[in-house]
Amino acid sequence: MNNDDKRIILIARAKAKPDLLEQAEKTLLAMIEPTRAEEGCIEYNLHQSEDDETVFFFYEVWASKEDLDEHAKTPHLMSLVEKADELFAEPLDVTSWKMIS
Amino acid sequence: MNNDDKRIILIARAKAKPDLLEQAEKTLLAMIEPTRAEEGCIEYNLHQSEDDETVFFFYEVWASKEDLDEHAKTPHLMSLVEKADELFAEPLDVTSWKMIS
Repeated sequence: MNNDDKRIILIARAKAKPDLLEQAEKTLLAMIEPTRAEEGCIEYNLHQSEDDETVFFFYEVWASKEDLDEHAKTPHLMSLVEKADELFAEPLDVTSWKMIS
Repeated sequence: MNNDDKRIILIARAKAKPDLLEQAEKTLLAMIEPTRAEEGCIEYNLHQSEDDETVFFFYEVWASKEDLDEHAKTPHLMSLVEKADELFAEPLDVTSWKMIS
């Protein structure tokens, strides 16, 4: 393990309300372009479950905590957070990880 | 979404027995080199939780189901599966996803 590795990995899980699935997916997809353009965004991939089409997650690799803190202040992320109660059946579930290889 | 996209994404979660943490981590790390060398392995990253050092997951991107089927037959994966009961507190939890962006 490289102790100089400041990268932060997030898994951000979202479960759409079934009747708002299309809108929820569109909203999540709209995050991709502006987020990938951010400083320190190394990877930002959106996935949909093979078993339950309402379940999504982002796999996010950030260069540093500072970059992630800036991400939290962006209009696109704040907009997603604002829409979360309307679109998602559960609160967004975000967990933090270190990449060890 | 690109319908020609045959990629399969797996999240494989492992929870080590606390008293075997070091051995479990070593066993998971040993998967990296031979797996990344496999045909169709696009990404294979190992992570450890920031909240619970016994919790790990692999983020796996495979080019196709065929490549993943071959991965299942490799000696290194079979060896991991054989050691799972000994090293891990819970069964390996593998979920399947499609990347939609």
